[in-house]
Amino acid sequence: MTRVSQGAPARAPVDQPLIATVIGDPAGVGPEVCVKALTLDGAPCSSRHVLIGSVDAVRLAAAASGLEPRIRQVGSPREIGASLSEIAIFDPGSLPKTAWTIGKPGAASGRAVVEWVRLAERWASEGLIDGWIMAPVDSHSLKLSGQIESIDDLQPAGTYLLRVSPSLRVVPITEHISITEVPSSVTISAVSALVALVDETFKRWGVRGARIGVAGLNPHAMGREDRDAIAPAVERERAVGRQVEGPISPDSIFRLAMEGRYDVVVSMYHDQGQIALKTAAFEGACTIYIGLDHVRLTVPHGSAMEIAGKGIAQHASMASAMKMAESLCAGRGFGGED
Amino acid sequence: MTRVSQGAPARAPVDQPLIATVIGDPAGVGPEVCVKALTLDGAPCSSRHVLIGSVDAVRLAAAASGLEPRIRQVGSPREIGASLSEIAIFDPGSLPKTAWTIGKPGAASGRAVVEWVRLAERWASEGLIDGWIMAPVDSHSLKLSGQIESIDDLQPAGTYLLRVSPSLRVVPITEHISITEVPSSVTISAVSALVALVDETFKRWGVRGARIGVAGLNPHAMGREDRDAIAPAVERERAVGRQVEGPISPDSIFRLAMEGRYDVVVSMYHDQGQIALKTAAFEGACTIYIGLDHVRLTVPHGSAMEIAGKGIAQHASMASAMKMAESLCAGRGFGGED
Repeated sequence: MTRVSQGAPARAPVDQPLIATVIGDPAGVGPEVCVKALTLDGAPCSSRHVLIGSVDAVRLAAAASGLEPRIRQVGSPREIGASLSEIAIFDPGSLPKTAWTIGKPGAASGRAVVEWVRLAERWASEGLIDGWIMAPVDSHSLKLSGQIESIDDLQPAGTYLLRVSPSLRVVPITEHISITEVPSSVTISAVSALVALVDETFKRWGVRGARIGVAGLNPHAMGREDRDAIAPAVERERAVGRQVEGPISPDSIFRLAMEGRYDVVVSMYHDQGQIALKTAAFEGACTIYIGLDHVRLTVPHGSAMEIAGKGIAQHASMASAMKMAESLCAGRGFGGED
Repeated sequence: MTRVSQGAPARAPVDQPLIATVIGDPAGVGPEVCVKALTLDGAPCSSRHVLIGSVDAVRLAAAASGLEPRIRQVGSPREIGASLSEIAIFDPGSLPKTAWTIGKPGAASGRAVVEWVRLAERWASEGLIDGWIMAPVDSHSLKLSGQIESIDDLQPAGTYLLRVSPSLRVVPITEHISITEVPSSVTISAVSALVALVDETFKRWGVRGARIGVAGLNPHAMGREDRDAIAPAVERERAVGRQVEGPISPDSIFRLAMEGRYDVVVSMYHDQGQIALKTAAFEGACTIYIGLDHVRLTVPHGSAMEIAGKGIAQHASMASAMKMAESLCAGRGFGGED
């Protein structure tokens, strides 16, 4: 985990970002959407891509999809060129072909995913890659692996999850905590820190002077925490020149953002933003980590074991995640939306 | 206030419902949208309408809108026929023409609104009318009146507010309470009572065997209250034959309802449903009271003082509220949507 403290030097944008994609659970649709996105949609020449995972899974996925890309195994990210005529993959070799079955969660798959995720995070923190994408993992496989308790454990401590849909960007100050714990988590320092982090991160990604809307906690933003925590936090961040407004009534702020008033909404708890995102924009929002010095994102769909190996998985989400990762790493914003 | 206890005999549907509409704040757009809805959209012959409020305000609104309906003052709801050629109005006569100004909130307007609302509620509880509609009131006028603290005080104790948009119907177990108070309000008896009340009320309105979705409280409906309060309440109501499911993940249930899986969602707090309604269906949802023995609803827009008296207010919301009130009173469901 390579957390950026507020104000710490951030990694500069690069012209030719190098982006890794962990193939996700080998038994799910992850390998397939990776192969299709790289083969059918092509990556811009300005970016270089490498997959991390089982080369067997990628070969199977290509065959199931009726595709015949050249697949080249590399020993390190340094070997990756900008060739569009091949798929580069790094396979640590720890997952035997016989240890997993298409369409079935399993302990070996779960252990491999954890290994690949840790490798990607290490490469990124050492500067070997500029960003990375996580294809769909499977919560059953991860539990069976015995290495992590839940999918939440893949989130580095101290990071926040920004959800990006075509019409809405939302980042909550907390994730899976109970509603009982929510009010005490809404403090001046928590709100202020996240607003600052969002502003600095957006700047690095190419969105200068992001207009940040901060949701209230209580109905119509008229409660104790709205007055005593959120309002002073917003005031503090405005005082240092950030374009931030709040607390805004929770039932209005997401509509206002969709209408263009805010580039991003800072929400006070998980469901506040998720209800808006999933109700208004169900096609799914990719998730970007905030608080790392590199770009890291995940696609919005699951491992879809039931259709794995059939060659029918939609790769649009992965293709747009790859384009967004490229754009953010290069400091060009959210890929043409801004 | 005439609350129906669970299981108490409910008022039967009527063929020719008599519906009153309180004109709302006389200085706002309320009188105008009432006149336009009754004159331009016409009410079905099967219903009879009467306005409650200042006849001066209604005459001004008609003139400002370039309309010349016959306006007849009545002394009681018993005098109302089913004539489409006139607007019947009951004016208690307590608001002098000189005591208020178009476009300006004021104490006299606020006091008059409180009087009209109480009158409508009394008529309804005495069975003189079958239902009534509240045109937009103004919170400033109401505060200035000195008679009530806030607009919330117009809600009879023990009632719930069902919001109805074209795509979504939601009723929360509580309204404007702080998030801190929410978890303790989610009890087996509270959830169970509201589910039963919704089912019985929908049946009276003409929706038999309503499919009721109950939202969870915590992220992914995986918390203490979800397990210990909501799940047993749903079980209890299923056991007596109601079509109810839950707890459903709060970030999925509204989308599921919009896709047709539920006729209505019972939500666990104000913003849970309001975020979904206002984000997905901003055109506004009218509000229907649940827990009364008669139909009572309000239109979704405000008094819009800034455009009052100009004849340009949209009356579509009022027209559809009148149609919905007619349909519910007659036991025909939500006006063609079902």
